[in-house]
Amino acid sequence: MKGAVLYGPGDVRVEERADPTIVEPTDAILRLSATCVCGSDLWPYRGIETYPGPQPMGHEYCGIVEEVGSAVRNIRPGQFVVGSFWASDNSCPICQSGYQSRCVDARLMGLEGAQAPFLRVPLADGTLVATPELPSADLIPSLLAASDVLGTGWFAADAAAVAPGKTVAVVGDGAVGLLGVLAAKQMGAERIILMSRHESRQKLGLEFGATDIVTERGDEGVARIREMTDGLGAHSVIEAVGTQESMLQAMRSTRPGGHVGFVGVTYEVALPGMDLFMSTVHLHGGPAPVRRYLPTLLDLIWRGTIDPGKVFDLTLPLEQAAEGYRAMDERRAIKTLLTP
Amino acid sequence: MKGAVLYGPGDVRVEERADPTIVEPTDAILRLSATCVCGSDLWPYRGIETYPGPQPMGHEYCGIVEEVGSAVRNIRPGQFVVGSFWASDNSCPICQSGYQSRCVDARLMGLEGAQAPFLRVPLADGTLVATPELPSADLIPSLLAASDVLGTGWFAADAAAVAPGKTVAVVGDGAVGLLGVLAAKQMGAERIILMSRHESRQKLGLEFGATDIVTERGDEGVARIREMTDGLGAHSVIEAVGTQESMLQAMRSTRPGGHVGFVGVTYEVALPGMDLFMSTVHLHGGPAPVRRYLPTLLDLIWRGTIDPGKVFDLTLPLEQAAEGYRAMDERRAIKTLLTP
Repeated sequence: MKGAVLYGPGDVRVEERADPTIVEPTDAILRLSATCVCGSDLWPYRGIETYPGPQPMGHEYCGIVEEVGSAVRNIRPGQFVVGSFWASDNSCPICQSGYQSRCVDARLMGLEGAQAPFLRVPLADGTLVATPELPSADLIPSLLAASDVLGTGWFAADAAAVAPGKTVAVVGDGAVGLLGVLAAKQMGAERIILMSRHESRQKLGLEFGATDIVTERGDEGVARIREMTDGLGAHSVIEAVGTQESMLQAMRSTRPGGHVGFVGVTYEVALPGMDLFMSTVHLHGGPAPVRRYLPTLLDLIWRGTIDPGKVFDLTLPLEQAAEGYRAMDERRAIKTLLTP
Repeated sequence: MKGAVLYGPGDVRVEERADPTIVEPTDAILRLSATCVCGSDLWPYRGIETYPGPQPMGHEYCGIVEEVGSAVRNIRPGQFVVGSFWASDNSCPICQSGYQSRCVDARLMGLEGAQAPFLRVPLADGTLVATPELPSADLIPSLLAASDVLGTGWFAADAAAVAPGKTVAVVGDGAVGLLGVLAAKQMGAERIILMSRHESRQKLGLEFGATDIVTERGDEGVARIREMTDGLGAHSVIEAVGTQESMLQAMRSTRPGGHVGFVGVTYEVALPGMDLFMSTVHLHGGPAPVRRYLPTLLDLIWRGTIDPGKVFDLTLPLEQAAEGYRAMDERRAIKTLLTP
């Protein structure tokens, strides 16, 4: 099969890779209906994260089960399934407490390279959730979004303790931030302030439920949020960038006793202790336990309540993966869907 | 009156200071029954925190109301009262949400200098809580502890989401850590692991409810906690030191999805983003909103349920404040009570 491989900064090639096969008896092999490029794929694409050699890319996926290993009990060939970017057994104490991304046997799906027509999924029974029947084509983008970007935005809103009556601010207008807006709306937030200065992203944010747009950043952005909240700050802040500036902007936009849910990968962050101490906020985040939310999210998508697939504003055949990366890197696209 | 004044690192003098007077109509003047030296007083004593000039010291207090300003409605002369180390109006939205230490009108009591016979307390109605009647002398140390060190340990346990059935680890065997043990016990923790290598502190920790003692520190301490918790880490970790090492030790001792309650003042901390991200813990802490807990804590002390005053293992007349600081700095004393 042909799959996307990163050779170094800015160098994505679609080249011949071995077809995946059952390695462990708990594996499943999927024929992917769609895959996509993640904001976090841009870290190695930009050279901030490095790999020792050529690296198959991609960790977001949905599709039809082709084959299962001998120990797989619940997932069957022919089912349409969605899984998280972390494979998990969904039965260890950490999974049972809702943190499947930190399963005692967690496997990073990025190592499997989901930007390809076929994918091996370890721990299939724990990882995959099937839809009631085969979905129509128009649902595929939204089901794909559930695999990471929707689940991550949802976790950020949950970590930020979004609830009815609260004011929520969202730092970051990428796909995760925008789906954080959608999640906050579903969780009943009274006011949802999206911090964005890009017209197309503002528009989608408003469509997803944002009530206000703030274009200022950094200290000015913080001042604007405080001004809009009687000087107190937002109850809940979603951080979906992962830089030092965005983390501090998120913390400083939150009122004392409020909650910051952070999901931007914080490679370059060192949080100053006294900012943390004096903020008196609740800070929670990290790699989203998407598996926890999948049943709920698939149900909302299936019933047509939410349409997170709208974050894909560029669709390309897998062969053009390189252009899909470039478009996101240059912020010409919010998120690129790849059709295998 | 004579009060303690810090002139520079290691230089505490008890010298003549002006008697406090009513400045604002919401003030009260207390005649202190007892005061004490805080672990956080050691930061400026050691020169890590600096003041522009000689600084009256002390922010923990209890005593009898001498006089109140014209706008004080609920607090009356003759009452025995305890207040937090932050004065607060207890009525703004932040106070109402339980974060009185971050009241929109918060005043740091340290500026008033409570290591003295008399003390001005701003925002008396919001700040002070009266006991049902005048306490007997044996209750004074415990009531004094409620002013900061007990309330801070209690907040740390609450921030760490201590609850029945959970395993709690406590990093730091100072008075706050020890009272974190006491709080965890009251909150129904199943197992309370105190990290300590000092015999007298271990003993008091066991008396307060610790079920296990771990003497290892840093990576070894983390490994020991994991070993004791099926490799997962504790559910709840109380951080009561405030150094880079202790914060990382606390985070790494916590299972994914668990809670760290931190109350050590984090002057020298810069939390690495990826440690924070991958830990997937809940992080909450800062200056404790002691006022939130005062009614509960005074009630528990009044009924004899808890005896937090045991953390005072050295009692000196106020005139010997310098020796009180030295004994704590050299870890000869856990905490020094000063009698005015």
